[in-house]
Amino acid sequence: MTITLSNQLWLYDTTLRDGTQREGLSVSIEDKLRIAYRLDELGIPFIEGGWPGANPKDVQFFWQLQQKPLKQAEIVPFCSTRRPYTKAVDEPMLEAILAASTRWVTIFGKSWDLHVIEGLKTSLDENLAMIGDTIEYLRSQGKRVIYDAEHWFDGYKQNPDYALQTLKTAMTAGAEWLVLCDTNGGTLPHEVSEIVSVVIGQEQKTIPQIGIHTHNDSEMAVANALAAVMAGAKMVQGTINGYGERCGNANLCSLIPNLQLKLGYSCIGEHQLNQLTGVSHFVSEVVNLAPDEHAAFVGRSAFAHKGGIHVSAVERNPLTYEHIQPEQVGNRRRIVISEQSGLSNVLSKARTLGIELDKNDPQTRQILQRMKELESEGYQFEAAEASFALLIYEALGQRKQFFEVKGFQVHCDLVEMKETTNSLATVKVAVNGKNILEAAEGNGPVAALDAALRKALVNFYPPIADFELTDYKVRILNGNTGTSAKTRALVESGNGQKRWTTIGVSTNIVEASYQAVVAGLEYGLLLYFQPK
Amino acid sequence: MTITLSNQLWLYDTTLRDGTQREGLSVSIEDKLRIAYRLDELGIPFIEGGWPGANPKDVQFFWQLQQKPLKQAEIVPFCSTRRPYTKAVDEPMLEAILAASTRWVTIFGKSWDLHVIEGLKTSLDENLAMIGDTIEYLRSQGKRVIYDAEHWFDGYKQNPDYALQTLKTAMTAGAEWLVLCDTNGGTLPHEVSEIVSVVIGQEQKTIPQIGIHTHNDSEMAVANALAAVMAGAKMVQGTINGYGERCGNANLCSLIPNLQLKLGYSCIGEHQLNQLTGVSHFVSEVVNLAPDEHAAFVGRSAFAHKGGIHVSAVERNPLTYEHIQPEQVGNRRRIVISEQSGLSNVLSKARTLGIELDKNDPQTRQILQRMKELESEGYQFEAAEASFALLIYEALGQRKQFFEVKGFQVHCDLVEMKETTNSLATVKVAVNGKNILEAAEGNGPVAALDAALRKALVNFYPPIADFELTDYKVRILNGNTGTSAKTRALVESGNGQKRWTTIGVSTNIVEASYQAVVAGLEYGLLLYFQPK
Repeated sequence: MTITLSNQLWLYDTTLRDGTQREGLSVSIEDKLRIAYRLDELGIPFIEGGWPGANPKDVQFFWQLQQKPLKQAEIVPFCSTRRPYTKAVDEPMLEAILAASTRWVTIFGKSWDLHVIEGLKTSLDENLAMIGDTIEYLRSQGKRVIYDAEHWFDGYKQNPDYALQTLKTAMTAGAEWLVLCDTNGGTLPHEVSEIVSVVIGQEQKTIPQIGIHTHNDSEMAVANALAAVMAGAKMVQGTINGYGERCGNANLCSLIPNLQLKLGYSCIGEHQLNQLTGVSHFVSEVVNLAPDEHAAFVGRSAFAHKGGIHVSAVERNPLTYEHIQPEQVGNRRRIVISEQSGLSNVLSKARTLGIELDKNDPQTRQILQRMKELESEGYQFEAAEASFALLIYEALGQRKQFFEVKGFQVHCDLVEMKETTNSLATVKVAVNGKNILEAAEGNGPVAALDAALRKALVNFYPPIADFELTDYKVRILNGNTGTSAKTRALVESGNGQKRWTTIGVSTNIVEASYQAVVAGLEYGLLLYFQPK
Repeated sequence: MTITLSNQLWLYDTTLRDGTQREGLSVSIEDKLRIAYRLDELGIPFIEGGWPGANPKDVQFFWQLQQKPLKQAEIVPFCSTRRPYTKAVDEPMLEAILAASTRWVTIFGKSWDLHVIEGLKTSLDENLAMIGDTIEYLRSQGKRVIYDAEHWFDGYKQNPDYALQTLKTAMTAGAEWLVLCDTNGGTLPHEVSEIVSVVIGQEQKTIPQIGIHTHNDSEMAVANALAAVMAGAKMVQGTINGYGERCGNANLCSLIPNLQLKLGYSCIGEHQLNQLTGVSHFVSEVVNLAPDEHAAFVGRSAFAHKGGIHVSAVERNPLTYEHIQPEQVGNRRRIVISEQSGLSNVLSKARTLGIELDKNDPQTRQILQRMKELESEGYQFEAAEASFALLIYEALGQRKQFFEVKGFQVHCDLVEMKETTNSLATVKVAVNGKNILEAAEGNGPVAALDAALRKALVNFYPPIADFELTDYKVRILNGNTGTSAKTRALVESGNGQKRWTTIGVSTNIVEASYQAVVAGLEYGLLLYFQPK
């Protein structure tokens, strides 16, 4: 591997191996394949796929990739060194990674004397032999080897000579990359900087390339990786969204833009960088974890602006309140509607909804006024943009009345000896002057209400058949007055293509939810029957 | 302010001001007061309470704190400099912060020429006058002043001379702290380090203390704050759990242990440091956001270990896989699949409730078993210790049955032309073999249920007359399935002297709330009629 550009870095993704160690995350082989193909498109050069020697599912994963290989990326299996006092050639774990038929393999070994003696219960010399033999054997089988030096920083701090000896052994045996791992995540950037410099200084003439692998236990994983790169490391290991054991691994979604946009290193192509937000959301969808809305660079709130002056300034010159252009990482600017909103927020929010308001029009001030009134009652439009759109249409006299709810009843019964509570809702709705009475059941009063309303309306508005409630959140306001406190309900609805969120507020939790459900139906209908 | 110890740092919490800028977070005055008192106990010396000049709720908050002041901490109002071409004495915003009656005030001003010209639309000289006048006026009114230099790092990079002039002006006018803010969160640690060193070097002889205020847009907020401290900053601003606008502020829950345990700075007392995990969870409960289970130091997974060698190694020598002792920050080690660790959890939790369990008693294992079953259904006993106590009493055969609910019905009606929804609940309860049927109304199904239950029971258990629901929180679990998602209800009850919290989980929100209400009554009765 020849380095031609001094600013070229090699990314190494371990979402599929270290990332899956995150508590609560589990993936199928199909999930892993989908993620691998997506990372390949993103331009990640090394993708660690798993530990086939320890996990039979991973054997299958590598086999499937042989049938339909990645386009650009090297897929890499991961394995430990041979066990103490065995021969590498007899080690079934190594057989398993050879069977993965990849060009590259990653081997991890112990750097910290304490772990050799207390963990492996072997001698320091035998550990060196394990590292050397394993790598030599894999080289003899035609593999290119990345060596992960586990617990490197802790080991170096306790016994630098021994730690350096393990690296030398791996290098002599033919490893092309030596990756320094902060396995416990306890190291701080100034230490990383110092220790990486020592390694690079010491070995300058003979050493292959140095890599960095960090964990987030001190909320330093990304900062530590940057510190290592600035000290000369050329490979950066991490995971999408920072998934990983305990507090996670270094987050590639933060690392890549920091390295590329701020420090001028080259990691992936520009047309790939703007896929980053998409990849982050894709991976969180596949592993079924809610995306972190406040994540740096790729979070939904990462470029969200609140205050009034703030918004008018950002629209005049985005540089004033944004550290990068959101589009560079495939994210977008968002103007948030909140208690502190001024007119300019209302205008720009309306614009994203396709409505041009005039700043000097008294109607615009009325909208702001009405919004503030509702906010003081506990409404909050930040997360309920569809309700805000309805408010604007109403102020403009453009809120089409699809239907009118004349009343509803909900009954919840827990009857003797029964395990579950059933809810039954009855609604009376008027459409075009005609009253409809409908009833439906559900496993909760809100589900029952929603079902009854849709049943009543679907004959008039057939698109309602595709609507569904996709998320439901409840927050009790000024909670200190117990159950008579005000309740704020947020309902997210969808039609298979688009999702929208509406809000309701009331002292009665059923009433608040009902308001949000009704507004959700109404907004959904507007998607089909737009006001002029 | 005289600095006596070279390693002393001053923490400045802005959870109640900058933290509440987080999208989706909103707090009542009561919430803010509860958090302020808790931060005071934690030993935070400066607590920023809000911006009374911009937010009428904050005026009330400061007024309430005058009635019941904090014990140790300085509560600080926040405000901008006076507007261009006005007099500080005529500025209503400044009047509002004087009315807060605090010893300290924080004033923020512009450091970046671009913001002065494009944002404030005034001259560079006028901005300096605004900074100087405002601080002088507040000094003349007897206030001690912290000056927040907004957009400091961006400003310094564009026009270092002007940025330094703004600091000099603030200092000359009498500010005792100059806080350098990375408002857009785009700065990297090596830049922070360099720029803070320049400021401290430049001004060494005359300057007051330097502070640092960072944002997390590059996932660098904590690393940047550390870099500033290592370059000589003495005040560190941040928020609990890193709450804040966009991607959040510097997370005090990571900063404090990094500074104190790793770098040897003194921030809060040792007996306060071990409250950190508790404070993190308390604040997330109060603001009703799910805690980040993977947060550094304080997350539930931060010291979670999975099976195998790892676990036995960590049990022999925790240093091998843990960067700090979890107890130092009030967290604990968790062995994810080992029953042993679960057992010690149960034992230690029981101990906090005054119940001594025997580790080898089969009953203790039964409690663990039951707890795990319930947790897999969505129960969580961390914030519902009264429910956990009931579970233990049950396993020990000591759960006194005060009453048995035979069934309930709740009706919620929104009838035509009426503004509010009424709820009517009917309950059938058996006490000492006698069935009682009672009905009651309330402004919500839960309030109605609670009223009906208490009406049915008060004649048998007179203390119930003093019971009241003091708080009620609802969270939807796995929210992605809409209203049929599981609901977790937490109910806090009180009797005027003591408060206790109970939990219920069900797909039906009414059923979940009902479970928590019933458990709350039951636990309350135990306070009067203790099991042997």
